[in-house]
Amino acid sequence: MKSDIEIARAAKMQPIQEIAKQLNIQADDLEFYGKYKAKLPLHLIDENKVRNAKLILVTAITPTPAGEGKTTTSISLAMGLNKIGKQATVVLREPSLGPVFGVKGGAAGGGFAQVIPMEDINLHFTGDLSAVEKANNLLAALIDNTLQNKKRGLNIDPRTINWKRVMDMNDRSLRNTVIGLGGIANGIPRETGFNITAASEVMAILCLAKDMHHLRKMLGNIYIGQTFDGDPVFARDLKAEGAMAVLLKDAIKPNLVQTTENTPAIIHGGPFANIAQGTNSLIATKMGLSLSDLVVTEAGFASDLGAEKFFDIKSQYGNLKPNAVVIVATIRALKYHGGINKSGFSIPNPQAVEQGLANLEKHIENMKLFGFNPVVALNRFATDSDEEIEVVKVKCTSLNVKMAINEAWEKGGEGAIDLAEKVLEAVTHCPSCFNPLYNLEWTIEQKISAIAIQLYGAKAVEYSLKAHKDIELINKLGMNYLAVCMAKTQNSLSDNPDLRGRPEGFTLNIREIEIASGAGFVIPIAGTIMRMPGLPAIPAAENINFDDEGNITGLF
Amino acid sequence: MKSDIEIARAAKMQPIQEIAKQLNIQADDLEFYGKYKAKLPLHLIDENKVRNAKLILVTAITPTPAGEGKTTTSISLAMGLNKIGKQATVVLREPSLGPVFGVKGGAAGGGFAQVIPMEDINLHFTGDLSAVEKANNLLAALIDNTLQNKKRGLNIDPRTINWKRVMDMNDRSLRNTVIGLGGIANGIPRETGFNITAASEVMAILCLAKDMHHLRKMLGNIYIGQTFDGDPVFARDLKAEGAMAVLLKDAIKPNLVQTTENTPAIIHGGPFANIAQGTNSLIATKMGLSLSDLVVTEAGFASDLGAEKFFDIKSQYGNLKPNAVVIVATIRALKYHGGINKSGFSIPNPQAVEQGLANLEKHIENMKLFGFNPVVALNRFATDSDEEIEVVKVKCTSLNVKMAINEAWEKGGEGAIDLAEKVLEAVTHCPSCFNPLYNLEWTIEQKISAIAIQLYGAKAVEYSLKAHKDIELINKLGMNYLAVCMAKTQNSLSDNPDLRGRPEGFTLNIREIEIASGAGFVIPIAGTIMRMPGLPAIPAAENINFDDEGNITGLF
Repeated sequence: MKSDIEIARAAKMQPIQEIAKQLNIQADDLEFYGKYKAKLPLHLIDENKVRNAKLILVTAITPTPAGEGKTTTSISLAMGLNKIGKQATVVLREPSLGPVFGVKGGAAGGGFAQVIPMEDINLHFTGDLSAVEKANNLLAALIDNTLQNKKRGLNIDPRTINWKRVMDMNDRSLRNTVIGLGGIANGIPRETGFNITAASEVMAILCLAKDMHHLRKMLGNIYIGQTFDGDPVFARDLKAEGAMAVLLKDAIKPNLVQTTENTPAIIHGGPFANIAQGTNSLIATKMGLSLSDLVVTEAGFASDLGAEKFFDIKSQYGNLKPNAVVIVATIRALKYHGGINKSGFSIPNPQAVEQGLANLEKHIENMKLFGFNPVVALNRFATDSDEEIEVVKVKCTSLNVKMAINEAWEKGGEGAIDLAEKVLEAVTHCPSCFNPLYNLEWTIEQKISAIAIQLYGAKAVEYSLKAHKDIELINKLGMNYLAVCMAKTQNSLSDNPDLRGRPEGFTLNIREIEIASGAGFVIPIAGTIMRMPGLPAIPAAENINFDDEGNITGLF
Repeated sequence: MKSDIEIARAAKMQPIQEIAKQLNIQADDLEFYGKYKAKLPLHLIDENKVRNAKLILVTAITPTPAGEGKTTTSISLAMGLNKIGKQATVVLREPSLGPVFGVKGGAAGGGFAQVIPMEDINLHFTGDLSAVEKANNLLAALIDNTLQNKKRGLNIDPRTINWKRVMDMNDRSLRNTVIGLGGIANGIPRETGFNITAASEVMAILCLAKDMHHLRKMLGNIYIGQTFDGDPVFARDLKAEGAMAVLLKDAIKPNLVQTTENTPAIIHGGPFANIAQGTNSLIATKMGLSLSDLVVTEAGFASDLGAEKFFDIKSQYGNLKPNAVVIVATIRALKYHGGINKSGFSIPNPQAVEQGLANLEKHIENMKLFGFNPVVALNRFATDSDEEIEVVKVKCTSLNVKMAINEAWEKGGEGAIDLAEKVLEAVTHCPSCFNPLYNLEWTIEQKISAIAIQLYGAKAVEYSLKAHKDIELINKLGMNYLAVCMAKTQNSLSDNPDLRGRPEGFTLNIREIEIASGAGFVIPIAGTIMRMPGLPAIPAAENINFDDEGNITGLF
């Protein structure tokens, strides 16, 4: 079997203007980044078409640490739909360099279902993440500069500043820092830290903004901290939002690339789903809906994270009406939830699969809560036994849920035709079933409870002293109408990464609640989740290199 | 008078493939970044042509804090040479966001001598600085990750680590930090700090590398610190250089843009001249020389900084043979050196100009030390009186140096024809006069002394205890053969920013000496210069915005 990067390199890429033609985009509307990437101008968005095209969300069961191929499934579903004569575009997030150099080594699909040029997509791409990082860190520099130049009268209490710097890197040692050391010429010493860029509120804003004016307004609404008199301070009080928006002038435009089968792919925005809203930009989704009949998109991790936020935050704010949901499952992950570890993944074990089905069942229930009867896509691995697959099939039938076996990793779009047909049925059957889990008017605690109890399966929510104080502040600031964007481990439906399957009777622990008023949500942080990941003992970076012909190696 | 950004926007841009045609580049060799920017593949470099084309360096007298228009002069000189029938390309550095959002608001020339699209060039451009930043910070993350995962056995003594993180931002509060706080999950606490990206050794390496393989090798040679046993640790010991080089795979390619008169401009690499080597990449210079008969390039700040490093580091390592030197002067700066402050700049004062000439004279002497009889380009301002200009003219004549009045800011290339003609004479007269100031075999102290005493005019060099220890370490590591890249204030020929004119009898104070063995030099830090700038009380960022038509405002 070839490696992902070998398959990607062997794929016959078409010039990007040829891909654009499929979407009826004039070459003159393309802003080329090399021969195979282009940015799309926002004027191509057509709200009428947005309303009429069909939107399909791909989510998953709780994944093993390696991931279960949600991106691969999304790409292959779009390719499969094209194979059966439909016009479908896949719309995805941009990879973050953190995981690329950490565990994953790449995030552009796998096998014969990839987006290409995968090297570029995995590395810098068109610079959007860097632009987000710069806009975030410009605001940070302006804040500390305001502290240094006290005479300007903003009177910010440094102890209240909640705006962190960001870096697109897995760098645990930046989580907790002290800055401004070295005497009066070098700033005001204070505690702060770095998040990964994918968790930046600026990224969240970029992914929820409708246009440049909206973007600037949202940036201005970023809450920074308080004055010594207890008054809130926003980015607009520092006149930061203009320069921040200007830094994002290109980043706001979605990127057009192609799949390994030359179907159009739009890739834009990259918030993680465990610590941010976990779906590509609203602009990219609308762009996809404006340009094709069907859009396949994904939301990060499982239904408790990406999908919930896709519905409650993105769809609710963005007025989207999703039409169908796919839940990706693998025999491997079901075994994992049935108590088996990595060493046992390739040994047939239908009983373990059976036991792990509780996790799948919960995710199916979750999608029903939002009004959908999901299609289960079983991402097939060579080591899966027929008996194991039968176990899943029986369960799905008993739950009145359709299941398709996806063999796209090995066979490309051809391997996803069964899935495509079942999804098409679901779309036709349910043109607009969607309803959100909570209303924005509810209190912060009510919104958190709805997610924790209904979706995660918790019996209760417990707030730390700090979290209580944070809610008090949120209420005092009149921000209780904001949405809720949970930060929680992706390894469990609960906030304890070790609880597999379908945890019950647990209490969800809210450690603190950050305010992201620019983006329009608050971020309750559950359990021990970190907003800046670390590198593993042997980082993927060590194996990334290039060979004598200049080909990049070690991305997969 | 229109603002720079208005002039830039009014300029009639040609599609970048048209500019490429002027240089006989096939459209297929261009990697487009939008319609008006493109990256150039390295195979266009032709060493034969590099040897035969002519290279003109633009330097300056000691500038006022606002700068004296060196970039403007370089651009206009190239335009002027084209006006008189020569094929000339201007090769420049990329702007850093730090100064753009700090004092300067932009760095792409001025008036009718700009490189365009100036908004893009000033903001992210093609992502090169971000790539440098990522490569630098990946190494930092790998270092701290190695400390965290002790079992891997590199045994690095955290107290010896000299590798800092970088950010392309003026952010003084990041100069001195403590990272790794928060307990065992969050790294090893240690003191460190951030430099601005333009001062990164990775930037220096990018600007001195010959190709991807050379780049990777140089990255591997980066000195990080020592083990507890006192052995040196390099980036290659962490297997970092492959991934770092891969991050720079696009950044290594020079960027083609155009001037406001559609002459070709290559912009690539962005090290500052006060804290790094201060000239565009060697690759870009060679690209320019491969593609045109004449290349005009600049080195940052005055002859004591950018020009010295251009000759001693870049030309010596890169085997370049510069053919002529231009020294930019302004009546304003001469008055400044004659003791006048900003409020008096526009009031005619020939005596102050006369007094300030000592500074110009020293820079002329400096260029003679390298074997050149420079041409003085007097950048004319509307407020300059004829009498003041006459003072400069008389002085230049007495020194046997040609002087041209440059009116390009107001008139574009037309205003630089006199300069172009005089420079052409200098080139013809002196096809290869260049000799460096020191040989690499000299000791570190000898090299520093040569620069300090001969070029700065110091009477002696004093080393701090730390600097002495640094030299000991450098010698112990066998790195005494490295070049010397001084970090020193740009506001004075001395290390004291308040000493104007031609300071004499001063002692140059070396605070410490950093090792940049990957780039091939050591960095003696003189006086109080900082490698991370700060923002002013009212940063330019506050005025950067966009109007209702989407046009960017506040860049100049």
